[in-house]
Amino acid sequence: MKSLTNLFSGIPNVLDRELVNELLKYGSVRIERIVSRGQSSPPDFWYNESEHEWVVVLAGKARLKIERQPEIILGPGDTLYLPAHTKHRVEWTNPQQDTIWLAVFWKP
Amino acid sequence: MKSLTNLFSGIPNVLDRELVNELLKYGSVRIERIVSRGQSSPPDFWYNESEHEWVVVLAGKARLKIERQPEIILGPGDTLYLPAHTKHRVEWTNPQQDTIWLAVFWKP
Repeated sequence: MKSLTNLFSGIPNVLDRELVNELLKYGSVRIERIVSRGQSSPPDFWYNESEHEWVVVLAGKARLKIERQPEIILGPGDTLYLPAHTKHRVEWTNPQQDTIWLAVFWKP
Repeated sequence: MKSLTNLFSGIPNVLDRELVNELLKYGSVRIERIVSRGQSSPPDFWYNESEHEWVVVLAGKARLKIERQPEIILGPGDTLYLPAHTKHRVEWTNPQQDTIWLAVFWKP
């Protein structure tokens, strides 16, 4: 399989679940392209990752919740740093268009 | 100074030289937003960095050259991985619009 080299390509017409493409994994760093089409985190589910994460929304719109903090609205270009074990969840993504995330993960 | 949290904001009207904003520096990882408006690498200059670099063009257009390889044209969404000490230079960026790069650097 040819690896994905353009962040805006390789998005299927039908997207029943969130699409995750690993773009790079090298040493302590992993980079993913994630496409959401209305998907959000399951009820009561919280991400609690052992890696640091830096994320940017390149297209679309999302509402993200960090534990004990007000909801954050993210649109095109908005970035967010989530240190390891920052409990967070995706409350909502726009069902009318693709929300394209670029996420960089690295080990503490 | 409030740190930049949106990749498409904080671009001045006048841009005499390439604009580099450090978005995050934590542990082994550094993330930069770079804006070029027609700038390119000086003649005979080659980047030869001690860090690995993964770069994506989010807007605009650029021509990049890796030593002993054909030129690469990069447009919106195009990504490129440059392992440490990959000698490369920016041959050209579109002078008619801003070329916005997101670059992730990490130590080998």
